[in-house]
This record gives sequence, structure tokens and C-alpha cells, in this order.
Amino acid sequence: MTDTCIRDCHALVPDASGSLTIARNQDILVRGGRIAELRPTGGPLEAGVTVLEGQRMLAMPGLINTHAHVPMVLFRGLAEDVPIERWFNEFIWPLESNLTEADVYWGAQLGLLEMIEGGVTTVADHYFHMDRVAQAVEEAGTRAHLGWAVFGSNGYKVLAETAAFAERWRGGAGGRITTCMAPHAPYTCDDGFLRASAGHANRLGIGIHIHAAEEMNQTNASLEKRGLTPIQVLKDTGVLGVPTLIAHGCGLLPQDIELLEKHRASVGIAHAPKTYLKLAMGMTPIRALRKAGIAVGLATDGAVSNNTLDIFESLRLMTMMQKHEAMDPEVLPIPEALDIATRGSAAALGMGDRIGKLAPGYQADLILVDTRGAHWQPPHNLAAGLVYSARASDVHTVMVEGRVLMRERRHLTLDKERILNEVASTMERMARRVPESRIQSYKP
Amino acid sequence: MTDTCIRDCHALVPDASGSLTIARNQDILVRGGRIAELRPTGGPLEAGVTVLEGQRMLAMPGLINTHAHVPMVLFRGLAEDVPIERWFNEFIWPLESNLTEADVYWGAQLGLLEMIEGGVTTVADHYFHMDRVAQAVEEAGTRAHLGWAVFGSNGYKVLAETAAFAERWRGGAGGRITTCMAPHAPYTCDDGFLRASAGHANRLGIGIHIHAAEEMNQTNASLEKRGLTPIQVLKDTGVLGVPTLIAHGCGLLPQDIELLEKHRASVGIAHAPKTYLKLAMGMTPIRALRKAGIAVGLATDGAVSNNTLDIFESLRLMTMMQKHEAMDPEVLPIPEALDIATRGSAAALGMGDRIGKLAPGYQADLILVDTRGAHWQPPHNLAAGLVYSARASDVHTVMVEGRVLMRERRHLTLDKERILNEVASTMERMARRVPESRIQSYKP
Repeated sequence: MTDTCIRDCHALVPDASGSLTIARNQDILVRGGRIAELRPTGGPLEAGVTVLEGQRMLAMPGLINTHAHVPMVLFRGLAEDVPIERWFNEFIWPLESNLTEADVYWGAQLGLLEMIEGGVTTVADHYFHMDRVAQAVEEAGTRAHLGWAVFGSNGYKVLAETAAFAERWRGGAGGRITTCMAPHAPYTCDDGFLRASAGHANRLGIGIHIHAAEEMNQTNASLEKRGLTPIQVLKDTGVLGVPTLIAHGCGLLPQDIELLEKHRASVGIAHAPKTYLKLAMGMTPIRALRKAGIAVGLATDGAVSNNTLDIFESLRLMTMMQKHEAMDPEVLPIPEALDIATRGSAAALGMGDRIGKLAPGYQADLILVDTRGAHWQPPHNLAAGLVYSARASDVHTVMVEGRVLMRERRHLTLDKERILNEVASTMERMARRVPESRIQSYKP
Repeated sequence: MTDTCIRDCHALVPDASGSLTIARNQDILVRGGRIAELRPTGGPLEAGVTVLEGQRMLAMPGLINTHAHVPMVLFRGLAEDVPIERWFNEFIWPLESNLTEADVYWGAQLGLLEMIEGGVTTVADHYFHMDRVAQAVEEAGTRAHLGWAVFGSNGYKVLAETAAFAERWRGGAGGRITTCMAPHAPYTCDDGFLRASAGHANRLGIGIHIHAAEEMNQTNASLEKRGLTPIQVLKDTGVLGVPTLIAHGCGLLPQDIELLEKHRASVGIAHAPKTYLKLAMGMTPIRALRKAGIAVGLATDGAVSNNTLDIFESLRLMTMMQKHEAMDPEVLPIPEALDIATRGSAAALGMGDRIGKLAPGYQADLILVDTRGAHWQPPHNLAAGLVYSARASDVHTVMVEGRVLMRERRHLTLDKERILNEVASTMERMARRVPESRIQSYKP
């Protein structure tokens, strides 16, 4: 791979105090898949570098989706305006009984296509038939943190098989794939199963990606049934003893945050506000989590609840909802919102030393956002533009480890036409619901 | 103008019960600026019609922005993360002292450009130097409901001048422009001034567009000062005796809704949820208003609070916020959300008999939304797509009164390059803030 210079872009970088700001008219030199240098534009170029023109583009770290079920794009729009119990029992879990391995592969390709178009370079995916997701990621050229979802009812043998997946793909796709254990949730996995999950994770030196305290009703049900919150269950079963990525935390109590604070070096919270609004799940207490030093990252969840895999949308909703809930427009100002979207998300995945920042030594996972649209004019405040005006469709160029995956919105790794055709061909079959064949029951 | 046939599109239309649904594979015949017929595609075409291919496009009524300050796009991004008092007193009102008539003209052009690109065909604009806004609307080819904003401190003479504007432009741009009186708000206009505004409106047979009960603090301040809510003030001063468009109503009390119910034939509420979230203003009680039969429409407010003039974004936020606030995901289901975005907004402007519906006899103000993007796939549910997946950038074709304003995202009426250059040339001057020169003080 040749070295690349992104010339004369604006760049989202930390200032001297660490706060994110826009450095105007920068060159970004990429060498060996990493960022080598950021410098004011206008100097001489190194011999042999490939130049990517960046005028009126805003360079920022590639977006990170800290919790998704990517292949669920196949079911987009099939479960609308229903409460969470019906959403699971009458829609999602019956629908998922339709899935074949091939469906998961094409669903993953479609989701990756949508995410690349929206500037997402890393996704933490939590789903089934994960070898096929890993294959799709390898082909797409993105980065991913993959866990094979299992329920307690699947049994310990399946848990061992998903541990084998984690071992098989750890470091896959030239190091772009990391893996984890992915027990579904405390309300679908008994304590022994969670303990066994933590055991596999410990043995392999990896983490756990799990749903917990998704909404307050779950927390209350857990307290009623056993006198413990879902987070206390994670503690007691050893899950918090390994690096843990928790979705979604709308049901966190103050004592849960105290508990998580003790594990803050290795705990992250994935926040998917669009799903919470659509399903009326409440909202993650982001300010309290941040105050306790716990990493919070942005997420989209699956497209059956979230409809899109758009992290710009998650960023905007997170920021606005925190102001609304606090009844204070000064809460979560723009630099902090951008911090969560970049360094926060990277830290939530335990990758804060490698991605989420435009700085020498970091992976060259970055995007160029086109600021030439009418909705960006006049460009008084590009940072505000990123939070409040940017659309996924403004993403112009996407790079992962120095390799360009999309340029001028043309895909260089994925075959868009083929993917859309393959997905269209299974559309009718995907929409069939057989309630009796549901893969699981929701009863927290 | 020749007749046009939009061929083989999907169309958002009322079903037999009046609920909005998607009719697939329709031809839409447009004749004399109006919709003449919707019919299943495949039949023979009338001689001499111009064909617009609509395959995989979704036709819907042109979006309506029921409350904006369009030229404020000039200040986009200049007032972030501040409470409403500082927003007005330290930012908006000092900034607005920079404005010249020419600025308003180019700001209006930029805002119209952004709105056309986002499928907005009608805007209710409430601003200054409105002759220049009217001129911009005339050139852009859109529809607009225009009121010249005045404060009580401007005096009665200026009120008479703005009434003269309303008279001058009423029926302007070939009938596409309607006008109204636009006193700013009960907290900036005394009772006599409001009464005089209603007097002018009565005399001219037009309505009033006004801010009232924008947030609960305003309502409380009014109750404290004079024992009346802002809505009661509108009643007592005769404002509610003429057609009234009220922004934003986050401070409505139950007794206000009862009062508005009595005037529901001629009252509309403009709802701009993004602004409310950003400024932590609370939320309009849409369900109670709709239950009382009061028209609610979607809006963006100005771009200094809302950052974008994107009605798809307002639609999505409205829908999700109503679910969130009610803690009930079944609230405001998709057909009702689309009803508000189309017929509701038209009714709020008193134009429900002319726009907001794809039906014979209605104005041919319509847009084609491109459903081919990855974020729309697979297209199980196009109505859900409109509410939860559509982006302003999906708008492919925009038509007003049968005239195409944008096709394949190319503008046919506005000169985008010139507008962006003109706006860029004044950018530095626009950003200057001289607190002493503020045009008004916020002290409700």
C-alpha cells in the first residue's frame, strides 16, 4: 500500500487541553495504514505519495457503531409501533427463525454497505452465524468487534461453539477483526450460563458483549424476582471481571453506576437513542456515567428497532436528548458530544489506543465529510455542523487502515448492485412470521 | 405548461378510511398545475404529456414548513449550547442588527435552496424585509405564507407598513404567495399592539402568525405578571378572532387547549421539535391538541436554533418524542405521523383544501423520494421508510403547481453556485455581535 496524503482538509482534532476542535487547512499523511502526521497544508509532499484532495472536506475519525445486529437490516420496517414484548415475541424472534447462513451474509453486506455510506468504519456486532458476518467484514474492508449471540436455552455446547468462533476469528481480516463472547442478556441467560461465558472469555483473554438493564422494567423485574439488578448479576457471575460492553443501560440505577465505576477501566456502555425513543425505553443516564468515568459510545442497535445504521443520527439524538432530559441546553456541549462519538466509542470497545482519534500512530480509520451542501452554509461552525447538520449522505470518502473503501460515494470494496439484488430476492421469505417458531421468548 | 405524467411511482394516498397508505405502481397525471388523476400504471398515456419516470420513487405531497425564519440560515451555528435568554439577548438579536435587505434576499435564497433539496414546497416565513423574501420565493417557484415580523417597540406605524406588505404581496407570485400579519409574541407586543394587528388582519381578511406559549417559563411569567396565559392574551386581544398560526406551544396548559378548541376551525400549531430539544424548551402536547381537533403542522423554526430546514427530521423527531414522552411506543403510529406531515401542516396554514394531499383537484405540489438507497432496503414498509429512514438527500424531484423545481437533485429555478458565493461573501460580517445593538430584549 502506498502512502497517502489527504490534502488541505479541515480536521477534527484535540486542542492543547484535549477538547475536540477543528483545525483548518491540514494535510494528513497516512503511512503503513496509520496516521503519520497532521500538519498545516502548503508544504512539499513526500515523493510517491498518493494525494486525496480534501478541500472543503472535514476529516474526522471513522465513526464507530458500538452495538448492532447488522444482518437485521433484512427485517427493516417489519416491526413498527409496537411495545417491546410484542416487538420480541410477535416480530423479531419469529422473524429470526427464517434466517439462513446465506441470509446473514447478505444482510451483513447490506448493513456494511449502509454503514460505509454513513462513515462507520468499525462495528461491534452481536448476532448469529457470525462466520458469515466475519467474511462480509473481511470483504468490506471495515473493522469489527464480533460476538456470536447465544441464549441460555441454547445450552453450554453452543456456548463452546461460539467461543470457538471467537478464537477462530480473533485477529482475523489482517487484524481488523476482534472477537468476544456474546451471551444475550441476564434475562435470557441463567447465572451458570453467564459464568460459563465469563469463563470462556477469561480463557481466551477476550471480553463480553451483552444486553443488560435495557430499560427500567427489566431492572424492576430482576429486583422483584431475585433482589438483584441486572448489573449486580453481571458482577456476581464474573462478567464484569472481563472487559464488558453493555447495551443499553436505560434501566441503570445509581447503585449500578457505582458498581460499574469500580470496573470502569474495562466497561463500556453502548448508547442507541433512536431505538430507545421508538420503543419508549427511557434514556441512558449518560451524564452520570461520564461523571463516573465510564466510557459511553454511540450505537444504532439493529435496523428493526432503529431503522437505520446511521451514527450521525445517534450522535444528534444523544446530544439533544441529554439536553431535553436535563431541561438544560448547556448540557453536553458540542466538543463533548464529538468526544463521545469518537474517543468515547473507541474506549467503550477497549480500542481507545488505536482508533477514534486523528493523531500520529493511530490507525488511519477516517472519513471525509463533505461540507459543501446547502445545509452546511455558511460554514461559521463546522463542529456544530457535524453534530447538528451532517447527514450520512455527506460522507464523501471512507478509509480504514489507510485503504480507501469509498470515494466520492463510490464503493471500492463492495458490489452494491449485487447486494441489493440478493437482498431483494429473499425479501418475501424474510417477511414471513410464524409465531410458533420463535427462537426465544421475552419475559424478563 | 404541458401536462405531465409521473409514471409508475408509489404514492402516499389516503385509503378508503382516510388513513394514509402507499399505493404501489401508480401514474399521476398533472394538468394545469393541479393533480388530475391517480391511476394504476400501465394504461395508455394522453397525447402530448411530458413523462417523468417514477420507478422506485415514492410520490408524496410536497413538505410544508409551518414556521420558519428562513434568512436566519445566515447565522447557522453561531448560537450553540446556550439557554434561551442568552440565545436571544447575546446572539440572535445582536446578530440580526447586522442584516441588510440584500442579506435577507440571499439568506432567503439559501434557505429555499436547502428546503427544495429537502422536499419542502411551502414555507410559512416570519421575518424582516419580507419584500425580499417574497422576491426570492417568486424566483424559486415555491409556495409561501409570509408575514413581516414586528415588535411592539417598533410602533404602530411599522405595523401599518407590514400590513401594506401583506396587501402588496397577497396573491403574489401567480397566487403562490399568501400573507399574514406577524406580531412577534405576546411577551414582545403589548395588548394594544396585538389588537391593532388583529384589526389589520380583519380589515385585509388575512390571518396572524405569532409565537406564543413557546415554553412553560413564558406561560408562568405571563400568569405571574397578569394572571393570564399567553393564549388567553391572544383571545382577549382578538388575535384568535382571525385565522391564527401559533408557534410553538410547548407552554400550553390544559385550559389553553380548551380555549384553542373553540377556535379550532381557524387555529394551527407549528411544531419544531429539534429546536425544542436543542434549547430544552419542553415539547408541544400534540396528542392533546389533536384530540381537541386542533391542526398541528411540522416546522423547523430558524436555522440558528434548528441548524437545518429539514422537515423529514422534524417528522421523525416529532414521532419519536411523542412516544418517548408518553412512554408508549404505540403512540403516534406511522399513518398519523404522515397525516400530520401532510394534511395537518396544510390545515395549520388554512390551506387544507389545496395542498397536503395527492388527490384530483389539489395543487400539484409534490415530491418524488428516491427509495433506492441502501438505508431503504429491503423495501418491506415504505411508509415506515418515510418516517424513520428517509433523508432530505433522498428527495429526487420537486414539483410546485406542476412546475419542476428540482430533478435528479439539479435545481431548475435557483442558481446554487451564485447563492453559495453571495452568502460566503457576507459570512464574516454576519458573525459580528454587538450586544449593544440588539434589536430587542428577551424578558418574558
